[in-house]
Amino acid sequence: MANSKFEYVKSFEVEDKLMPSTWIVIRINGCHFHRFSDVHEFDKPNDEQALNLMNSCAVSVLEEFPDIVFSYGVSDEYSFVMKKMTQFYKRRASKILSLTVSLFSSAYVMKWKEFFPQKELKYPPYFDGRVVCYPSTEILRDYLAWRQVDCHINNQYNTCFWMLVKSGKSKKEAQDLLKGTQTQEKNELLFQQFGINYNTLPAMFRKGSCVFRDKVEDMVKLTDDDDPVKRYRKKVIVDHCDIIGPSFWNEHPDILGE
Amino acid sequence: MANSKFEYVKSFEVEDKLMPSTWIVIRINGCHFHRFSDVHEFDKPNDEQALNLMNSCAVSVLEEFPDIVFSYGVSDEYSFVMKKMTQFYKRRASKILSLTVSLFSSAYVMKWKEFFPQKELKYPPYFDGRVVCYPSTEILRDYLAWRQVDCHINNQYNTCFWMLVKSGKSKKEAQDLLKGTQTQEKNELLFQQFGINYNTLPAMFRKGSCVFRDKVEDMVKLTDDDDPVKRYRKKVIVDHCDIIGPSFWNEHPDILGE
Amino acid sequence: MANSKFEYVKSFEVEDKLMPSTWIVIRINGCHFHRFSDVHEFDKPNDEQALNLMNSCAVSVLEEFPDIVFSYGVSDEYSFVMKKMTQFYKRRASKILSLTVSLFSSAYVMKWKEFFPQKELKYPPYFDGRVVCYPSTEILRDYLAWRQVDCHINNQYNTCFWMLVKSGKSKKEAQDLLKGTQTQEKNELLFQQFGINYNTLPAMFRKGSCVFRDKVEDMVKLTDDDDPVKRYRKKVIVDHCDIIGPSFWNEHPDILGE
Amino acid sequence: MANSKFEYVKSFEVEDKLMPSTWIVIRINGCHFHRFSDVHEFDKPNDEQALNLMNSCAVSVLEEFPDIVFSYGVSDEYSFVMKKMTQFYKRRASKILSLTVSLFSSAYVMKWKEFFPQKELKYPPYFDGRVVCYPSTEILRDYLAWRQVDCHINNQYNTCFWMLVKSGKSKKEAQDLLKGTQTQEKNELLFQQFGINYNTLPAMFRKGSCVFRDKVEDMVKLTDDDDPVKRYRKKVIVDHCDIIGPSFWNEHPDILGE
Repeated sequence: MANSKFEYVKSFEVEDKLMPSTWIVIRINGCHFHRFSDVHEFDKPNDEQALNLMNSCAVSVLEEFPDIVFSYGVSDEYSFVMKKMTQFYKRRASKILSLTVSLFSSAYVMKWKEFFPQKELKYPPYFDGRVVCYPSTEILRDYLAWRQVDCHINNQYNTCFWMLVKSGKSKKEAQDLLKGTQTQEKNELLFQQFGINYNTLPAMFRKGSCVFRDKVEDMVKLTDDDDPVKRYRKKVIVDHCDIIGPSFWNEHPDILGE
Repeated sequence: MANSKFEYVKSFEVEDKLMPSTWIVIRINGCHFHRFSDVHEFDKPNDEQALNLMNSCAVSVLEEFPDIVFSYGVSDEYSFVMKKMTQFYKRRASKILSLTVSLFSSAYVMKWKEFFPQKELKYPPYFDGRVVCYPSTEILRDYLAWRQVDCHINNQYNTCFWMLVKSGKSKKEAQDLLKGTQTQEKNELLFQQFGINYNTLPAMFRKGSCVFRDKVEDMVKLTDDDDPVKRYRKKVIVDHCDIIGPSFWNEHPDILGE
Repeated sequence: MANSKFEYVKSFEVEDKLMPSTWIVIRINGCHFHRFSDVHEFDKPNDEQALNLMNSCAVSVLEEFPDIVFSYGVSDEYSFVMKKMTQFYKRRASKILSLTVSLFSSAYVMKWKEFFPQKELKYPPYFDGRVVCYPSTEILRDYLAWRQVDCHINNQYNTCFWMLVKSGKSKKEAQDLLKGTQTQEKNELLFQQFGINYNTLPAMFRKGSCVFRDKVEDMVKLTDDDDPVKRYRKKVIVDHCDIIGPSFWNEHPDILGE
Repeated sequence: MANSKFEYVKSFEVEDKLMPSTWIVIRINGCHFHRFSDVHEFDKPNDEQALNLMNSCAVSVLEEFPDIVFSYGVSDEYSFVMKKMTQFYKRRASKILSLTVSLFSSAYVMKWKEFFPQKELKYPPYFDGRVVCYPSTEILRDYLAWRQVDCHINNQYNTCFWMLVKSGKSKKEAQDLLKGTQTQEKNELLFQQFGINYNTLPAMFRKGSCVFRDKVEDMVKLTDDDDPVKRYRKKVIVDHCDIIGPSFWNEHPDILGE
């Protein structure tokens, strides 16, 4: 039985190659994670273990897909950067998007027990995703800066909001109090009402998480008799750096280096 | 700190709305599942539990996304049909694709233990996916027929191949023996050499799996004193029907009915 | 000298095939034609010769491209309908769009003298265009109805507007007078103030122009001795029919017939 | 009569914005120009007046669309480069494509008499077109180099081919003679058999035509009494430069300068 009679339906598939020589960013986002974090009783405004789980999934993605050179995560969102010249699945958008979001989701469920040994996963979480191309390294860095500024704005607001709520305000009251306040005012509110110096809060909350390959040093004994020698290898690591200014990029020229 | 300086990067996102009034098909496929099925020692040519797990994930997808009206699965592949007039996420291709593949992947890992209580999941599996639109019901049905014909062709070949291998042939010998054989010859080979009547093999192997909402009958006691009465409700079910001919569609006019 | 070093730039070209089995509509529109009609002193609200020129260009397009089965024009706009199954330039959107708008523009300049023997063409006019696909005949007909309803609304308004202006009102006064008026009121204004029965105005102004192939009858003498016999052939004609209701389509089943 | 009932058909129009911050190239090409040049008896291998007409149309396009910063033409083909940051028609591909090809076609017909005063234009010529984006200036320059290398290869071949044909060979014989010959061999053939030094042929034939804005000097008398003073203004000019090497671009940094 030949399949030719129906095979014409393949002609409806569309080519979706992404523009060559552009940076590819895949951004994924927890879907209905407001509810998900309620059901699973995540700490507010930041649940450290939930963030560590997200980071661990991102590490898995980088370990599986070598053409992803950097990723940045905040809250239930993660952005993955594929190198400009990648030919991964011929740069087909739907392949790149689906593989990334699928592996991340799968890893999230698999690693749940490791990060929440006491909590049962009540139902399968899922993520949406999108793919965006950026034609220059400068614009790509602006994209990453955009996400980190967003992290800062949201985290500062959420820190204030939840401190107010925990101190007895209703959510409505907390919202009204914060309406229209500037960065400086929020920092003062935290310090004066709650004795919190915002800048001493954990970097992961304030700056989000960067996942990338870095040179790490191992001490290796080549033979039993030898003294151990230093060996360098690339390893996927998680850090919480400032990626808005140039320092990080100057110190890690390989990451986006062409 | 306003985010406006970097917000221009959003202008690089592309609108990807799918053509209105067309059937949307999301097809997902296990990535590197050849290796995955080896590592997890799936039965060849069909692992009943692995297929049941796939079907159970598809049920979860239909239960979560009401606009998916039908789905068809075979091997490590599943096709989901969204109704023609759906406005789900404004018909944005990347949203529809990522949500479906993400939920499926997540459910696959979560349900693993249920279907393989004795087998540990060794690493996170993942799926790729694509979205295709079909402008008419006729062509959509041809699409589904295409998948089912493929199921038949592959399953018949694989059944012969693995019977030959299990009977002592090398994989190379089995391949050579089957090269160029027609449907009828394969059926005869199975019957004469192995006493297998192909048509009596499980329908799930031969026809794949259809997942859709069907009217089911419940006996309900309205009050403790009442006699039970029949109640009908829609339930997502799994069946292994022929979807090439018109009978199934005539008997279930609601599924693709406009 | 081989060209291979630079040939990689071809990989930036994108495939832009239109969905198979859908109606393709190319709509073109005069660019800055407000100014163009002023400079060339077109009659207001309708310049008969300018419309005849547009229609004649559309005829040229249908004569050149057999897969265009119907076209509809109003004012400085024309819509061309390509048959559902066309394989013209493999359904590549940019080819289909550019060829149509180019031939139309070229014909417009070439035929100018024929329609405006006394008027010099002052500068090259040009048109923009777009391509839209429609998945069913029903929706395609709604598209055409949409354009014809628009023709009616605009023409009725413009007829009132220019009658008022010609009778001495300023453009501002005419606008204010017409603001918010309904169809019936506009007809009454025309009749009572200017003695014009809107429905007796030329059909071309009220209904726009349809260009399509129709069977025409020729009397042919096969040999000098023969009596002439009737011969039928298809010819591209211009008519001003109602295409909103079903009559026209029922009487011309071949045009959109599959 | 409201138009809302049919207005839903607009939802089938697709957004086709080109990626921001990329160079936009519109390349147009004469359609069936082999026949067109036969019918209009163009000189072979190059008709100087036909090329001048093409160039003059390109000048019109640059004069009309200020965001086109450079264009390059060869034979019946022209490439127009829109500046990276252009917001012309919100970077919508179909607008940009259709306007360019339409104006070029229209100008071609209008200017015909100026370049061919003795030849009647027999029928409306038309062009196809496409739009391609390039993410960096380097790749854009490779694109332009690609077209100029092509010009060289084709012109050298065609010069040999037509000299052979004019000297009495059949087209088939000329083809066979040239098959597989290299640049150097073709130059020798021209020199030895026809006394032609390829490098002294007109630059327009060998290098194609560049159209761009350049600073030109005018002597202006500010008042009747004044001595004339130098004034600079930008003017669209045609030149036949080498655009493969860096010299031209170094000497005209404004053209692609950001």
